[in-house]
Parts: sequence; structure tokens; C-alpha cells
Amino acid sequence: MQRYFIDPIQWHEHYIELIGDDAHHAARVMRMQVGDSFIVTDGKSRCARVCITEVSGERVVADLEEQLKFDKEPNWRVTIAQSLPKGDKFELVLQKATEIGAYAFVPFTSSRTIVEYDAKKADKQAQRWRKIVKEAAEQAHRCLLPEVRTIASWKRLLETFVHYDQVIFCYEKTELSRGLRDAIRMVQHKNELEILVVVGPEGGFTPQEAEQAAEAGAAITTLGSRILRTETAALVALSAMMYESGEMGGN
Amino acid sequence: MQRYFIDPIQWHEHYIELIGDDAHHAARVMRMQVGDSFIVTDGKSRCARVCITEVSGERVVADLEEQLKFDKEPNWRVTIAQSLPKGDKFELVLQKATEIGAYAFVPFTSSRTIVEYDAKKADKQAQRWRKIVKEAAEQAHRCLLPEVRTIASWKRLLETFVHYDQVIFCYEKTELSRGLRDAIRMVQHKNELEILVVVGPEGGFTPQEAEQAAEAGAAITTLGSRILRTETAALVALSAMMYESGEMGGN
Repeated sequence: MQRYFIDPIQWHEHYIELIGDDAHHAARVMRMQVGDSFIVTDGKSRCARVCITEVSGERVVADLEEQLKFDKEPNWRVTIAQSLPKGDKFELVLQKATEIGAYAFVPFTSSRTIVEYDAKKADKQAQRWRKIVKEAAEQAHRCLLPEVRTIASWKRLLETFVHYDQVIFCYEKTELSRGLRDAIRMVQHKNELEILVVVGPEGGFTPQEAEQAAEAGAAITTLGSRILRTETAALVALSAMMYESGEMGGN
Repeated sequence: MQRYFIDPIQWHEHYIELIGDDAHHAARVMRMQVGDSFIVTDGKSRCARVCITEVSGERVVADLEEQLKFDKEPNWRVTIAQSLPKGDKFELVLQKATEIGAYAFVPFTSSRTIVEYDAKKADKQAQRWRKIVKEAAEQAHRCLLPEVRTIASWKRLLETFVHYDQVIFCYEKTELSRGLRDAIRMVQHKNELEILVVVGPEGGFTPQEAEQAAEAGAAITTLGSRILRTETAALVALSAMMYESGEMGGN
């Protein structure tokens, strides 16, 4: 069943409203009519099946029919911190990681980030990123809408490490590094985990950044012998964690 | 170090030759010169470091310096069978799954395949697919060059199931289906595994196809509660299997 994320202000006591792009999508693209049902979620805590009572191009009103369980969300909350890659690679990460089950995203800049930060374009870019995540979350039938945080500096990102049970710092194989499975097993005794996966830009992290990450408590982690592109690393790590946490059965 | 896959006929007793695009890439893009080293592999069994003795735009000749171990290849040979999706999605699967560690690819058609098969374009398409895999394998530092097989019919694909230790048929959650981890644990007592991952087109498989797959020995498998796009499913399954097989440490 079609699913839309709506803002809490669109959620009234007995009905909800779709507006803007979502109203257009429901009325024009999906050609929904009075009597048709769909699912809405506020992306944070509520999820419901609703039935349409009014349709126009700009607004779709639907009565709340049944509260649904806000579920299907992974036990492990995996946040992806990605040093901004070139072109549209970050958009691929946002879309795919949202499907796979990411909890949130933190774009950041590090020494070898090539992309120039443009404050003028930042708002428009953030809007575009949130739209990609919203559409992917709807398509994947998620209840939670993963948050895309504002672009962080490397220093700021390091300061957030303390908030996580484990920080997986993806890095080439060195004497310091351990395998992803070992890094996960360090904390796996807990059922619900807050994990941060940190991925470098095309040119990788500097040795100094790896040292700083380790000092800030991260596990310097290798994802295996093959060299993954920057936009592939987070998807591989996230898939492995969803698997390990029992999201794919056999817990 | 830069790496090129070469055809066995370019591999001589004491030297190798790069020709065509690879010669152009080495000479013009990478600006390699006499005395520079790179790695060559024939994609099947041989891998060596070589040192350039001659450079022209059309041909680079390099002496064999050191035979390298043909390694870094996963213990589990995972072949990806993908019902042809629209647009360039199959190219994304080829590129990313090659990075992650796929063994081979089998494009196929099933009832809900939308893409029309065009015999006239097939050769050019196959060439393009092989080029994408070759470049991804070089970039990921693989020794093996994953094979892209010719497009199979659904019936032909079913007949190949017997050649694998396990066939993971990705399908929506039903009474028949098990989790990926359970499907893997059925065969995990073996160290080296031949696994086939079968992914449907945008519209999925028909219930009849799922039945036929089960009859042919496949494990009907769900990848979790979230709905993955067709081009994401194989990457998630492959990442999880690389993780489970110990490619990411902690065996």
C-alpha cells in the first residue's frame, strides 16, 4: 500500500492532510480517489492507515481508519557519517542506505574532501537530500524517516563519537585495524545498539585522521581485502550489520 | 598500485603487453613511463608485478618482475542472477557487486521483466557490461575477473540451480520463506561454497515462479522487513554473505 511521510502539523485528531508534492502524487500520479486507502507516518512515532474523503490537486484529506504499529525498524540504530564525495554519489548512499535500514545521516568534511562547501547552495542541497531520503523511506515501507543532519566539520564529528556504543571507522588495512565482525562483537552483548559508521572521501582519510578517530574511541575497521569505492563502503557495512543484528532472520 | 586485466594472449614468457584502452589508460591517463611498475592479472589464475620497458599510445610493454599470489578472492563464490531491470540499474549491480566480491553474473528474463531483449544490441550491451566489470575489478584490486554470462531464459536459469550448494531466491515474506541467515546456515558447514543469488525485476517474481524455484531446490529467502529495490537486493545479500563467510574478519 502507498505510504507517505507527513509533518506532525498535517496530523489532526480524526484525519490527516496531504499537501504539496504528496497531494500531487496521490491525486495525479497514483490517481487515488475518495474511498481509497493509504498509509501515513509522521516518521517519528505514529503510523496509521487512512481513507480518502476529499481530493483536489493541492490537498488530499483522509480519515484515520486504523492506528498501525510503528515497527519494522531495526534494533540497531546505524547512523552513516559520510565525508562528502563528488557528484551524486552521496545521493546514492542516502537512497540505498535508507532502503537497507539506516537510522540517520551525517555528511561531513575531512582533509581530503574535494567538494567545496557552498553556503548559498546548502539549503537547496539539504532539501534535495531530505527528499531523496523521504522517497526511499516511503518506497521501502519504513515507519521512521531517517534524518539528514547538517554538514559537520571533522572536529565536530569527532566530538559526537561519545554518544555511540560503537564507532566503525572504515579504513584501509593497517596494524591498528580489525575486521568489521570483531568491531561489532566488542559491543554485541547489547540488544539495542547505537552505531556510527564513518566513511572517508574518494582519497580516504589521512593517517592523522585515523589516529584522531582512534583516540576519540572509534574502532579502526577494515571491510575486507577488496578496495571499495567511497559510496559502496557504507552500504556494505550497513548490510552486514543488519544481517548480524538478526534483521534477516536466524537471530 | 594500478592494475590491469589482460587476455592470456597478451601474456608472454618474460613480458606482457597492454593494448587498446588499457595502453591508452596507462600511457595517456596515468602517464606511466619506462621504469614504472603496475600489476597485471589474467583474471583466472595468474597475477604479477611488471615493469615498463616500452611505451607508445597503442602499446605498453612491461617485463615480468614478480609473480604475485592469485589471492584476495572470497571463499564463497557468489554468482548474481538478476532479472534485467530498466535503465542503467544492472550496470550499478555489476559495478558494486564486483567491488564487493561477486564471482559471476547471470542476467536473465522472467515473466515480469519489462526490458525488451534486442538481439541487435546484445553484443554491444554485453561488451559494455564486461567493461564495467573489468574497471570495477581493477579499481577494487581483484585478481579474478567476474564473468558476465549471456542472458538466460527463466527456464534455463532453473536448470542451473543443481550446480550450486545453495540458491538464494530473493522473495517477499511468505509462509514458505526463511531469513537469509537461515538459508545460509543450511549449507554453512562447508568451507568453500558455490552460491547463486536470484533477484527479480522491478515487479518481482510471480508466485508461480517462486514455486518453480522452490521445486528446483532454491531457498525462498527474505532479506528483511524493508522493501528493497531490485538493484539493491543483490548488493545487500552479497555483503551479508561476505560478512558471514569471514571476509570482514572474525572468522
